[in-house]
Amino acid sequence: MKSGKSRHVPLKPGESVDAFMEGRLQLIQSARGYRFSADSILLSRFVTTRKGDWVVDLGAGCGVIGLMLLLEKPIGRVVCLEIQAALADQARRNAALNGFREKMSVILGDIRHPPLSPSIAHLVVCNPPYRPARSGRINPDPERAIARHEILASLNDLLSAALRLMKPKGRIAMVYPAARLADLMVRLRSFGLEPKRMRMLHPEPQEEAKLVFIEAARGAGGGLKILSPLVGQGDCSISIST
Amino acid sequence: MKSGKSRHVPLKPGESVDAFMEGRLQLIQSARGYRFSADSILLSRFVTTRKGDWVVDLGAGCGVIGLMLLLEKPIGRVVCLEIQAALADQARRNAALNGFREKMSVILGDIRHPPLSPSIAHLVVCNPPYRPARSGRINPDPERAIARHEILASLNDLLSAALRLMKPKGRIAMVYPAARLADLMVRLRSFGLEPKRMRMLHPEPQEEAKLVFIEAARGAGGGLKILSPLVGQGDCSISIST
Repeated sequence: MKSGKSRHVPLKPGESVDAFMEGRLQLIQSARGYRFSADSILLSRFVTTRKGDWVVDLGAGCGVIGLMLLLEKPIGRVVCLEIQAALADQARRNAALNGFREKMSVILGDIRHPPLSPSIAHLVVCNPPYRPARSGRINPDPERAIARHEILASLNDLLSAALRLMKPKGRIAMVYPAARLADLMVRLRSFGLEPKRMRMLHPEPQEEAKLVFIEAARGAGGGLKILSPLVGQGDCSISIST
Repeated sequence: MKSGKSRHVPLKPGESVDAFMEGRLQLIQSARGYRFSADSILLSRFVTTRKGDWVVDLGAGCGVIGLMLLLEKPIGRVVCLEIQAALADQARRNAALNGFREKMSVILGDIRHPPLSPSIAHLVVCNPPYRPARSGRINPDPERAIARHEILASLNDLLSAALRLMKPKGRIAMVYPAARLADLMVRLRSFGLEPKRMRMLHPEPQEEAKLVFIEAARGAGGGLKILSPLVGQGDCSISIST
């Protein structure tokens, strides 16, 4: 790499650097395999942050959510947890590439046993890997018990980890398949996490929602704000260049 | 009254007859006091019906939901339950006025002790009286425990009645304040009623949702369809003239 900030950060075979937001965000990603999706950008823009917040990203991939938050919001620090070594390494280099070596740390580890101190996060964010765009369309058939159980188990693992990592009045923001909204709300409530804000993503104005963005607060009272919906393809037609 | 179908149905003091849908629907209502709202029309158009369905309307008011269903869908029969004698009487006369004396019956009674045989309904519909437009804006403040408890108690009463009245694979369709969606989903699940279809109503395109229309099925598996949202004022700007 010859130009700009990226020259000090080595690329590995099969990786590329892409620039977004008029060059303000540069991302090392695998040219094949996992690439971040626009859902992550939408999540980073959906979430409510407060000045100085410590944010934990569960399953951070190449670190795009944390980088977007650091670029656009006055948060204090991001801790990325990622189970895949190659992605964790990318996230670590992406932090350096974008000048956030001090503010973003990356931990290699499993959500089910997070190697992190408890109660560190004001906010937990998560774009879980079982959303339709990454794992294929979620089958709405209730008979597909295995698939469903996997989803629920993952959600339990995720919420258990979030609860352990967040402060007493902490929050969680996540993306989830719209078809599973009832599961998500029931499960959030069962963990003492009250849904407070929600926003749907419809691929086309007259189509059903595909994804839901939701923010829940630990120990909060009832009262949910359902924002005006987003319309777009999620993975392709929503631009992050502005 | 001199013209059309209404001449055989007596009006009481303070009542008027209004025509909707190019005269296909005529409604006796109190000129003051309770008047049906567009939410009821939207609910009747939201709900899924099957040919020959028996429908129970819990808290039917002047009977508008049942009349709309009989006019627009090939259902079998409507049973209206209404606790206010004057409204039950209006609903009975509205059935006659619109030619549905044989297909729509009106029972005066309390949702908490419905004087109806169990397991008669393929579909239960309900536009409960605690929605914002009729009862004043729902206070989102979690500290207002009384108001909240009233809502939850009413919802429990309603779902208990619905479950008792519906067939083993029966459905319920209702309108509810969007701010209470989490309550509604958790409560539906706790009664074994799985949310299957949902639609938001936003007063303006960029505003938060005010109401949610939801349909749930007894004993069904997971998988929720979130339809494209409706936009309008609910009580005023959504026309039922077409």
